[in-house]
Amino acid sequence: MAELTRVSKNRTIWWENDTAILIDQTLLPGTYREISIRTVEEMWEAIRMLRVRGAPAIGVATAYGVYLGLQGRTYSDSKAVIERVNEVADYLATCRPTAVNLFWALSRMREAAEAHASLSPTDLCARLLEEAHIILQEDNETCRAIGRFGAELIQDGMTVLTHCNAGGLATACYGTGLAPLFSAHESGKRFHVYADETRPLLQGARLTTWELRQHRIPVTLICDNMAAHCMKAGRIQLVLVGADRIASNGDTANKIGTYSVALAAQAHKIPFYIAAPRSTIDRSIPSGNEIPIEERDPREVVSFGGILTAPEGIAVYNPAFDVTPADLIAGIVTEVGILRPPYKESILWAFSRTPA
Amino acid sequence: MAELTRVSKNRTIWWENDTAILIDQTLLPGTYREISIRTVEEMWEAIRMLRVRGAPAIGVATAYGVYLGLQGRTYSDSKAVIERVNEVADYLATCRPTAVNLFWALSRMREAAEAHASLSPTDLCARLLEEAHIILQEDNETCRAIGRFGAELIQDGMTVLTHCNAGGLATACYGTGLAPLFSAHESGKRFHVYADETRPLLQGARLTTWELRQHRIPVTLICDNMAAHCMKAGRIQLVLVGADRIASNGDTANKIGTYSVALAAQAHKIPFYIAAPRSTIDRSIPSGNEIPIEERDPREVVSFGGILTAPEGIAVYNPAFDVTPADLIAGIVTEVGILRPPYKESILWAFSRTPA
Repeated sequence: MAELTRVSKNRTIWWENDTAILIDQTLLPGTYREISIRTVEEMWEAIRMLRVRGAPAIGVATAYGVYLGLQGRTYSDSKAVIERVNEVADYLATCRPTAVNLFWALSRMREAAEAHASLSPTDLCARLLEEAHIILQEDNETCRAIGRFGAELIQDGMTVLTHCNAGGLATACYGTGLAPLFSAHESGKRFHVYADETRPLLQGARLTTWELRQHRIPVTLICDNMAAHCMKAGRIQLVLVGADRIASNGDTANKIGTYSVALAAQAHKIPFYIAAPRSTIDRSIPSGNEIPIEERDPREVVSFGGILTAPEGIAVYNPAFDVTPADLIAGIVTEVGILRPPYKESILWAFSRTPA
Repeated sequence: MAELTRVSKNRTIWWENDTAILIDQTLLPGTYREISIRTVEEMWEAIRMLRVRGAPAIGVATAYGVYLGLQGRTYSDSKAVIERVNEVADYLATCRPTAVNLFWALSRMREAAEAHASLSPTDLCARLLEEAHIILQEDNETCRAIGRFGAELIQDGMTVLTHCNAGGLATACYGTGLAPLFSAHESGKRFHVYADETRPLLQGARLTTWELRQHRIPVTLICDNMAAHCMKAGRIQLVLVGADRIASNGDTANKIGTYSVALAAQAHKIPFYIAAPRSTIDRSIPSGNEIPIEERDPREVVSFGGILTAPEGIAVYNPAFDVTPADLIAGIVTEVGILRPPYKESILWAFSRTPA
């Protein structure tokens, strides 16, 4: 029943009674729970612990986090508000290093504060909440546009592989990597999805299968190491994933394991697509070599539900992301259209456009 | 303490007081437990449930299983014993379809029975127990020889990636895929191992790390989907895995995920080696296309320790093996030397040799 409520509302993060509300994604699919975030510290923890995850959703969460960090204080003037915005933004910047949307949302909140320095402290705070609402609304429109452009890649009878979760749960509502699937399904196309479980945190098993089932799109779950075998057996015709950061040359950081899928797709001549909003593109870096890769707690790999799955104290390497080189990517689906190689040029073009 | 006992004895399956003793590998690394197998039905269950696993160990277990199936009956003549051998062998042939050593051991027990048809029923049964002992002893010698030949691939300072568990736990004692590592380590070489955790049953996380630590070989655990990223980062110089069945042309079935590793190794120009006894080579099939791929219970993928990791009733595809084409394999380390492409010829050569 709670699940149906979410689907009808179709949202992952929203604002209600001076509070940001999130679905706690660490509990899915076993438990559906909405949590209220009232302080910036709670937001930092929620992003860090992946209660809210996915690059676009992190962007929205961060924007609300900045506003929450302004609360419970009195400001002598707007300069004091701007100082506090910068302080809170510096703090939020420490919670996850790879997702560029986090930094993008922080910049946008800093810029909005500067741009409205003439307002009273109270009005400036209200304006910053408004800015967070706009970021959320834009995210919705962006995801819908990605869905429309990406849907043309989906043919009737096709099987599409996806990795991790770039669905509605990774955004404020509609998803990026999965948006073309939702859009194609809504337009009546019939196709099948294979979902990589996505170790270590099983976002594919827990979240992608859950979302696709709610949309009534047929889905089969596999372990990450089965994808290449499925491709060899002719079971996959298209790969579609999200992104956490895209460099100016098209190199793309996404959930660990994405690169492995891209290599297998190349070996089997299966088109491999990224779907992501322009806010995921970091034009300040020339290539994927400049993308920092977050390393997470070894316990994510060696334990499950409190049960140890490896000998006590064994060494673990746990990178959260990898970088897929641009030459393995057939296209990047954005809210202004599908970008094609060479990406340096098509990315420049994308930023010259206003969304359709 | 129990762990140290095993290491000093260095064995996974053995015979004691008319009983086959196995380490129950489904309980490792949390619990070390030796289980006594007294009937063929118990052996069928132990192989099926992966209490004993790994192609060579399955061969030894099967041979003892045949003998156990002869017990508790009286035979009028040796023909009755041979009939029962065939009956038991047909039954054991149903427990796992991919590991060729199972069928190889069954053939060998059938042939031994036929070859000694002139013995009394009691003596024939005793001879078949002897045959199982010989298979175990040969496995030990074979693994040591694989270790010696494969050790030359290991250089000081190297990092070697392995997938699943082809260690001592996959054989009667010394291992196949890991034997070159044990041998190189014993000869004083210093190197590092990355172990893929190997979903869904985590043989890498549970068993390979446990064995390598017991041998004091430094090991780092990763998720399967991290291997390609580690290769790209220059962390891996060699891949070494076992095999469950090798076709006449060198195509190799091994634990699901091996093919994905082989593709990534090729993309990074990292040599990919198989280590396996000749009994793993199935000369009756021309290529990997003829190798049946066992599909296992979906519950292996969607639950852990009784906790559901995906929505109830979600569709799952769970192949236990995949096939790596011969052209991705730099060499196959056997007990008679390292086979090189073209494998049709080197495999013929291997079978013309007696072990060194």
